Amino acid sequence: MNASMAGKRESLEKQLRALLGDRLSTAAAVREQHGHDESFHETAPPDMVAFARDTREVSQIVKACAAARTPVIAFGTGTALEGHVNAVQGGVCIDLSQMNRVLEVRPEDMDASVEAGVTRKQLEHELRATGLMFPVDPGADASLGGMAATGASGTTTLRYGAMRENVLAATVVLADGSIVELGSRARKSSAGYDLLHLIIGSEGTLGIITELTLRLYGRPEVEASGVVAFDTIENMVDAVTLAIQSEIPLARMELMDALAIYAVNEYAKLDNEVAPTLFLEFHGTEASVADDQRRFAQIADEFGGKGFRASASPEERKALWRARHEALYAAKAFNPGKKGLITDVCVPISKLAQSIADTRADFDEHGILAAIVGHVGDGNYHTTLWVEPGDAEALANAEAAVERMVERTLAVGGTCTGEHGIGLGKRRFLEREHASAMPMMRTIKTALDPDNIMNPGKVV
Amino acid sequence: MNASMAGKRESLEKQLRALLGDRLSTAAAVREQHGHDESFHETAPPDMVAFARDTREVSQIVKACAAARTPVIAFGTGTALEGHVNAVQGGVCIDLSQMNRVLEVRPEDMDASVEAGVTRKQLEHELRATGLMFPVDPGADASLGGMAATGASGTTTLRYGAMRENVLAATVVLADGSIVELGSRARKSSAGYDLLHLIIGSEGTLGIITELTLRLYGRPEVEASGVVAFDTIENMVDAVTLAIQSEIPLARMELMDALAIYAVNEYAKLDNEVAPTLFLEFHGTEASVADDQRRFAQIADEFGGKGFRASASPEERKALWRARHEALYAAKAFNPGKKGLITDVCVPISKLAQSIADTRADFDEHGILAAIVGHVGDGNYHTTLWVEPGDAEALANAEAAVERMVERTLAVGGTCTGEHGIGLGKRRFLEREHASAMPMMRTIKTALDPDNIMNPGKVV
Repeated sequence: MNASMAGKRESLEKQLRALLGDRLSTAAAVREQHGHDESFHETAPPDMVAFARDTREVSQIVKACAAARTPVIAFGTGTALEGHVNAVQGGVCIDLSQMNRVLEVRPEDMDASVEAGVTRKQLEHELRATGLMFPVDPGADASLGGMAATGASGTTTLRYGAMRENVLAATVVLADGSIVELGSRARKSSAGYDLLHLIIGSEGTLGIITELTLRLYGRPEVEASGVVAFDTIENMVDAVTLAIQSEIPLARMELMDALAIYAVNEYAKLDNEVAPTLFLEFHGTEASVADDQRRFAQIADEFGGKGFRASASPEERKALWRARHEALYAAKAFNPGKKGLITDVCVPISKLAQSIADTRADFDEHGILAAIVGHVGDGNYHTTLWVEPGDAEALANAEAAVERMVERTLAVGGTCTGEHGIGLGKRRFLEREHASAMPMMRTIKTALDPDNIMNPGKVV
Repeated sequence: MNASMAGKRESLEKQLRALLGDRLSTAAAVREQHGHDESFHETAPPDMVAFARDTREVSQIVKACAAARTPVIAFGTGTALEGHVNAVQGGVCIDLSQMNRVLEVRPEDMDASVEAGVTRKQLEHELRATGLMFPVDPGADASLGGMAATGASGTTTLRYGAMRENVLAATVVLADGSIVELGSRARKSSAGYDLLHLIIGSEGTLGIITELTLRLYGRPEVEASGVVAFDTIENMVDAVTLAIQSEIPLARMELMDALAIYAVNEYAKLDNEVAPTLFLEFHGTEASVADDQRRFAQIADEFGGKGFRASASPEERKALWRARHEALYAAKAFNPGKKGLITDVCVPISKLAQSIADTRADFDEHGILAAIVGHVGDGNYHTTLWVEPGDAEALANAEAAVERMVERTLAVGGTCTGEHGIGLGKRRFLEREHASAMPMMRTIKTALDPDNIMNPGKVV
């Protein structure tokens, strides 16, 4: 850092200190904690961490950073998976976790307005008395602002859609500190450019989401489960395809491959058959769920599904899904001390069976022991490649496998990430997937953030 | 037109003639036909009409226009409602109706790729043998490219979403003539900026959609109907709200107010009770539809619904829905020779009853005889104000009523257009609805179309 940069930083710190008092931190531990997400990417701490309390404060912080041409990185819970928050060019991290008010729940309109730092589970808790729910579930108890910023989805996307489909409106602070209101509480609108969806999934590189209005759903009368194993993933995918074509309104449909089942059996002392297994969740009334289960069982049967087990009681549901819930812990337990290179791709569903088979064969060939789990109804699957920290050869081997996995995905019309986003880790894949659209992405980035202060080094 | 402009136009015409031969037209009748949509806005013919045959040609035409800094307006079927295609600054209209190939239908992935000129009904016809359907239905047999460009929706949005939710990917020609591929055939993706949704609903002002990949759905085993009248719109909306909160998966839920019913009764010699009436459509299996109908009937009953009639046979369905289908014709028949000022707004559903009541009271006060119909589950309603051509006073009276209707809508958190778009007619309302976001819209428009050649004078 040269003298002029040090001076600039000092003056910015002074300014932010005047604004935030002890809600500005330069402590090493705080910076460290804000310098990484849950991915394997190397920690890159910001110079300072600003704990904002409202939209106005975020705007003031961004204005100060804009004047000083200093990077600004928004931080929710740090549960992203591609290095989204790592401050690779230093700068100011804005921690939004204190912006955690549920501003309004409107049961009559089935929507709720929240600050960006409210987490998924906090909202779930606050909705308990209303009979309503917010269904997007990426696994982690992420902040809703972070989920919108990364375009999160998860196990329920099949039925309820991803964040994209469930954010009605947002308050956003742009690179110059201006505050804009995007979207509308109306259920649909064709008024002007869809800037809301431009911001959703832009990973803090175009603006910082500070408030959100979310779409809610009536909590189903009945939530029931089903589990069924198949001889091959191909048969499973055929069953899944027919179920979707038959418009069985499945709420969740999760795949675990045989290796994932094996690991969970060992770890949690379960005795599931070691075979590709499908975990289902049905939402509806007693009558509709019974009908859906019956129809699904019929289809599973047609494709050699073995021992379809269904249940409606919450305890049985939990037991049936236990293997799926334990998958990550099992994988971790099998790889003590290692860091997981977590990745996801998404392919058209007709390509899913072949895609998983190819990935499995490739892993086997390269000595990689990685289970595959996924949201099979969307064609989206995940895998975690475990690497000993400091083992450069193993990391290179794992990264090369991910590279091949993405290449195969793009070759069949898929996307390099179904739900984890680009962050640091998938920038080179984005260039390949959207080669023709990259200039347009860059034009928009440059137009909205000419000094490149918003989460620089990510996405584009 | 001064000499230099005339020369520029002549040279462009020569260039396009060389490219297109007799698929370039300067005939007055052709220009006239391409100078308006179905709205009341004054016809503004383009200087020439270019009938393109593929994406490459569209790109070449746009490149030529870019070099000559001449406006380019895409044209599908001309069924828009806010002056979207009117060539208010002259220029070249690109008619896409010859780009009408269904490129590929992939039943196993439940998607289809089409050229932009394929119409909704053409696709429906071509899908007949597959058991699949494309559900977005704005009423008119619009081109799918036009539907995407205007962010169309319609009666089935409640269940299946609007164009926004049902376009997976698009090929787009930008203002410099470059061709970009946006989106992906994967069911979900978080790879980079969501440029696809930026283009959807941008009304040809950021780029021209030339090809689309659309999401398809399994055709339901059973399509059944229901009709029920209520004493008041308030009771009807309360029933609708509870039905939605109960997650009854209604496919369509259409409102006609008492005046609309009266007009249709007179026109088509029907004997519906003259009261606010709800038209429903249920999609599913025999069992699920019966369950849904039973649940809805119960809710309707709770709110004083009178004589819920349900049916499953296609003939009965048609008869039940006849009043809804005849609504526009009835309105036209009641207003011979007049032009309709067609408009729509969309409000949070809790505001719908009051919003319709206020609009009705305002119309009564100002001597306006206009029926109200709408997609009540979305909070979206439509009305047509009929005006004698040339009657400036009546037009001013109608426009003032629309202005007040939009003002009331914005005051309760609604949007100035649920599905018709901005075009020429609602630009001033867009400024009010999205005051804080307008600079961001203009920044993007300027960045992507610096010479303002793409459908100039619309949206922003």
